[in-house]
Amino acid sequence: MSDVKVKVGILGASGYTGAELVRILAHHAAAEIVLLTADRRAGRPFGEVFPHLAHLNLPTMIRIDEADWSNVDVIFCALPHGTTQEVIAGLPQHVKVVDLSADFRLFDPATYKEWYGAEHAAQDLQKEVVYGLTELHREKVAKARVVANPGCYPTPAQLSLTPLLEQKLILSQDIIIDAKSGVTGAGRSPKEGILFAEITEGIHAYATGGHRHAPEIEQGLSWAAGDDVIVNFSPHLMPMSRGILESIYVKLADGVTPEQIHEALVKRYEGEPFVRVLPFGTTPQTRHVRGSNFVMFGVVKDRVPGRAIIVGVEDNLMKGASGQAVQNMNVMMGLPETMGLELEPLFP
Amino acid sequence: MSDVKVKVGILGASGYTGAELVRILAHHAAAEIVLLTADRRAGRPFGEVFPHLAHLNLPTMIRIDEADWSNVDVIFCALPHGTTQEVIAGLPQHVKVVDLSADFRLFDPATYKEWYGAEHAAQDLQKEVVYGLTELHREKVAKARVVANPGCYPTPAQLSLTPLLEQKLILSQDIIIDAKSGVTGAGRSPKEGILFAEITEGIHAYATGGHRHAPEIEQGLSWAAGDDVIVNFSPHLMPMSRGILESIYVKLADGVTPEQIHEALVKRYEGEPFVRVLPFGTTPQTRHVRGSNFVMFGVVKDRVPGRAIIVGVEDNLMKGASGQAVQNMNVMMGLPETMGLELEPLFP
Amino acid sequence: MSDVKVKVGILGASGYTGAELVRILAHHAAAEIVLLTADRRAGRPFGEVFPHLAHLNLPTMIRIDEADWSNVDVIFCALPHGTTQEVIAGLPQHVKVVDLSADFRLFDPATYKEWYGAEHAAQDLQKEVVYGLTELHREKVAKARVVANPGCYPTPAQLSLTPLLEQKLILSQDIIIDAKSGVTGAGRSPKEGILFAEITEGIHAYATGGHRHAPEIEQGLSWAAGDDVIVNFSPHLMPMSRGILESIYVKLADGVTPEQIHEALVKRYEGEPFVRVLPFGTTPQTRHVRGSNFVMFGVVKDRVPGRAIIVGVEDNLMKGASGQAVQNMNVMMGLPETMGLELEPLFP
Amino acid sequence: MSDVKVKVGILGASGYTGAELVRILAHHAAAEIVLLTADRRAGRPFGEVFPHLAHLNLPTMIRIDEADWSNVDVIFCALPHGTTQEVIAGLPQHVKVVDLSADFRLFDPATYKEWYGAEHAAQDLQKEVVYGLTELHREKVAKARVVANPGCYPTPAQLSLTPLLEQKLILSQDIIIDAKSGVTGAGRSPKEGILFAEITEGIHAYATGGHRHAPEIEQGLSWAAGDDVIVNFSPHLMPMSRGILESIYVKLADGVTPEQIHEALVKRYEGEPFVRVLPFGTTPQTRHVRGSNFVMFGVVKDRVPGRAIIVGVEDNLMKGASGQAVQNMNVMMGLPETMGLELEPLFP
Repeated sequence: MSDVKVKVGILGASGYTGAELVRILAHHAAAEIVLLTADRRAGRPFGEVFPHLAHLNLPTMIRIDEADWSNVDVIFCALPHGTTQEVIAGLPQHVKVVDLSADFRLFDPATYKEWYGAEHAAQDLQKEVVYGLTELHREKVAKARVVANPGCYPTPAQLSLTPLLEQKLILSQDIIIDAKSGVTGAGRSPKEGILFAEITEGIHAYATGGHRHAPEIEQGLSWAAGDDVIVNFSPHLMPMSRGILESIYVKLADGVTPEQIHEALVKRYEGEPFVRVLPFGTTPQTRHVRGSNFVMFGVVKDRVPGRAIIVGVEDNLMKGASGQAVQNMNVMMGLPETMGLELEPLFP
Repeated sequence: MSDVKVKVGILGASGYTGAELVRILAHHAAAEIVLLTADRRAGRPFGEVFPHLAHLNLPTMIRIDEADWSNVDVIFCALPHGTTQEVIAGLPQHVKVVDLSADFRLFDPATYKEWYGAEHAAQDLQKEVVYGLTELHREKVAKARVVANPGCYPTPAQLSLTPLLEQKLILSQDIIIDAKSGVTGAGRSPKEGILFAEITEGIHAYATGGHRHAPEIEQGLSWAAGDDVIVNFSPHLMPMSRGILESIYVKLADGVTPEQIHEALVKRYEGEPFVRVLPFGTTPQTRHVRGSNFVMFGVVKDRVPGRAIIVGVEDNLMKGASGQAVQNMNVMMGLPETMGLELEPLFP
Repeated sequence: MSDVKVKVGILGASGYTGAELVRILAHHAAAEIVLLTADRRAGRPFGEVFPHLAHLNLPTMIRIDEADWSNVDVIFCALPHGTTQEVIAGLPQHVKVVDLSADFRLFDPATYKEWYGAEHAAQDLQKEVVYGLTELHREKVAKARVVANPGCYPTPAQLSLTPLLEQKLILSQDIIIDAKSGVTGAGRSPKEGILFAEITEGIHAYATGGHRHAPEIEQGLSWAAGDDVIVNFSPHLMPMSRGILESIYVKLADGVTPEQIHEALVKRYEGEPFVRVLPFGTTPQTRHVRGSNFVMFGVVKDRVPGRAIIVGVEDNLMKGASGQAVQNMNVMMGLPETMGLELEPLFP
Repeated sequence: MSDVKVKVGILGASGYTGAELVRILAHHAAAEIVLLTADRRAGRPFGEVFPHLAHLNLPTMIRIDEADWSNVDVIFCALPHGTTQEVIAGLPQHVKVVDLSADFRLFDPATYKEWYGAEHAAQDLQKEVVYGLTELHREKVAKARVVANPGCYPTPAQLSLTPLLEQKLILSQDIIIDAKSGVTGAGRSPKEGILFAEITEGIHAYATGGHRHAPEIEQGLSWAAGDDVIVNFSPHLMPMSRGILESIYVKLADGVTPEQIHEALVKRYEGEPFVRVLPFGTTPQTRHVRGSNFVMFGVVKDRVPGRAIIVGVEDNLMKGASGQAVQNMNVMMGLPETMGLELEPLFP
């Protein structure tokens, strides 16, 4: 490893994805954190906001407008959706960017407007952005200056369905994605709906049939299918901090068996360090990827003929956000892709 | 109310459904518990096994072979699957029975054998058994001597889909039931898979495409459709004690709208004390029925044209087991159906 | 029971204690809810704020200044601490009041000021207020117009220690109360510290050595000891919605045994419907009182000679708040004390 | 680092401490796992028992009697209490041992017999065993062949109280240790008491005044005080997988202030990589050490004059078991003490 480390800044460091970036980068052999911003908590040490990391030697959090970009090579942008477009558009050109917000994930400005209710504020920049689902777009990520890090829900959905659609093993109609998520996906800003007493010992559906990650999933699947794909995407909120499980119900193309689907995934992800496909007929648990950058898939035969079920899991803060963001940074900077990410799952 | 109370026995009182029956019956105005059996714990007071109910005045638990049936009007049978058929077949004819096991739920002996791996041991008795999904089979229940209480998963599935299939508002193909359950459904016998550390902070699919409640659901839906229905039924186990949420994905019949489906459910369950259909476009939470006999449904438009989503919730120990069992007893004994069951949900 | 029901109003109905009052009063044979106030949510139906009770027939929530007091017999005041004094002082004299806030619990204005940082705003009214720990002050409660309902933490502490101090079975020095609480005690207003992800899978101490319930406990114990008592009171916040467990470490008076302490509690609470003292050497669990008005105690011999340990549990929303409030109302209105409160614990 | 790695065996690898050892050692730069035993599950791959680590390249689990000791440098013994003494006594002398069971923790055979109900089966071996609370006994550990790894509860208790007793800053009487533990401390063998539904949403005391870790704590504190110390040790079981919090109530020696206690801990643990003492008046959370080898302490002034409160936290599977075991191995083998243990806490 080179002695010259990549100088990293994190914008919006006081949220859960910010803390997760710090946790990963603290032991990254070729990166060093030189900048942390947090508008509301500017001036405070990071360890006050996240006491579990108070022992690390980190810069004090500042406001974005106080940042000195000359000393920064890469920015992770973990700002709230909506404020990001202007911030990134205003950065000097030498700064590479991995954006964890939703602001650059939808490549069609009309779709963006439909789902976010406002004109995209950086449409020119959008054109040079690369969608950072690393395993699927690795070559483009390697050359990108600005990467849109995928949403938590779209990551397992696209990883599993993309090869199957590309190879026409499944139909592009009637794809149903029933997702179950932990609550850190909703962030750290206090809201009644994510209080402990409102979440523990129960589950509920939300944004059924109308979640903002639906168009992102559809965009990726349409790329894969070469055709407009519309999916049913139904998320549920459940009592866990981290983790997403997606139960994906698909129709097999004529003559295709569930075993063939499984085989296609096995082949596609052979040698991928973070994607694990379980033996046919078995399914993964969210708790088996917690704290790691792994995504795991299982394929099961459906009781209904001509159908199959794919179950995928990830840690939404890792492969679903900060882990994949560091993976993308590694690719962008020509570093080994797994650097800093060799973190085992924490179970139980 | 009459002063002469129904004399009730509970076989297998030391499990969670047994405790729930005791909790309900303790305040039932027209029933009194006269017999509790628990083979392994015979001779011990009920309050040792369930200290939260130790203040109740209850008979000591005995072995089944010690029971004096002459003094018993109704038996709730909460024995493990498999042992029940013989026990119930051996009861005197004056004893009415609500069986909470799976032993009499499948009316086709071949289907029973396929899923339970053994010949049904009381096929004659099976012919007089009534399937006790109260809202759908109330008249038959009223005249029954032996009622097979439905499984926890089949209850919301059948309540929601039966009217829609009867009225041909949805197709009978491609019904997908993605269920999320709390762990009390797995009973109180110690098993590694339901230890706290194996369940907390995570979710996993199990018995995907092959759960024993699938044929029970299909049996009910086939009755409704007048046709053989095969469904995808995919249960998941999650960190909550009580509660089941089912996300049901259906295809609308030609020209039918999701609003019409909603309207059909509203009409079907108008006046039903335990079934609540929420306003169109909203969905229920499991925690909002916890401890009560309610089942709640929401209907939502799917993003995919021609489809709709139904979300149903219940407390698996109440409407999914002991609550419905008491509801059936009330109907069988000519008592007001809600007696003992006017228990509000406990939230938070 | 009389046909004329007590007309009840709830001020601050949109919080957890408000919902719990509604849950209890919905089945109270001699009370009827005629008024619900909720400033921020005025004009909205109660069932929107608490969907689990949406089926009840309840008045729409209004602002306090819209209330018509002429039709109200009793008010439960569940307003935030600080605003309560003026509101209650402004009520017409025919209205009886059970105040669930802390505003009237401390009878010495200087102590109030020390802990709440402001002069008491209704010191005259304070003089006629009765402290509503029902089992200890039943006669006074029966004659009171305004009752200060005890805090959640002080209830088990005083119930267990009062008889022991009165009978001089324990020393009044060196009492240590290590309390573990669920999060509903912190209310429903969104705060980072009570988000699911901040509470699940962990525990922490808070306000160690300086919680506002310490002076309330000391006030009650000083009454019992006839002497100034100072206690160590150390609360901890843990992942459960409801429940408080207090481990109380005491020094025995010369020659007194732990068994005698146990015996004293058994005798003191014989016949009390809501206080259960377990067999010597055994201890209770919070989950065994959840949803009920019970408080349960166990007494254990300490390994250190001359000491004993008392473990007490309650549901903080029931005996620790709304349950005891209804118990007090029953006493104030001459109704059977257990009316509406015969609710079994919900386990699991 | 040397290229020759320490060859490590784990006896009893199928429990939670076994899995945690594997998680740590998988990335240990100077150790390699060459042997895994698991009697009941012999012949099965480790990844079947712990799927979250299935991607690691590990030896198949075998029975102990199949082990070839010639190739093993160090053994971690995670066998059930009671079976360990004979196994370790039978190992060849070249094998170093870190024993995670309780079998060699009590150095007085009479005390062992009193608490474990049987004669110690390896009393000669016991004489050469070193008690492995690393920070307190580092020099002895460095020269030991067999190390008794401390119990989970005794670790924070001794780390905090030992310096205070040595310096006579606190009295050795009336020490009260109120401990709250997650459930992995109870192991992975199925028992009713640790089922999810029996643990979630509640807390209870257990073994109050008579837990087997009490004599271990007393042994360590007696060493520190130069005197026989008896403590009140009261554990509680609560809904979390990992973590122990101990609230320790102490009496200050004449003229000593809580601030001085704090200062003494700060000084004692300056430079220690795994012990963090928070600023005076603040207290730690279990979730802030989860998955790490840290132990954190806070010191708070008690409201009762002449007293102080110490709050300590650790992850019971890490510093309370497997983490400290690896720390001890590092010291025994002359490796950097933190090797393999630079694992950040996982929050949330």
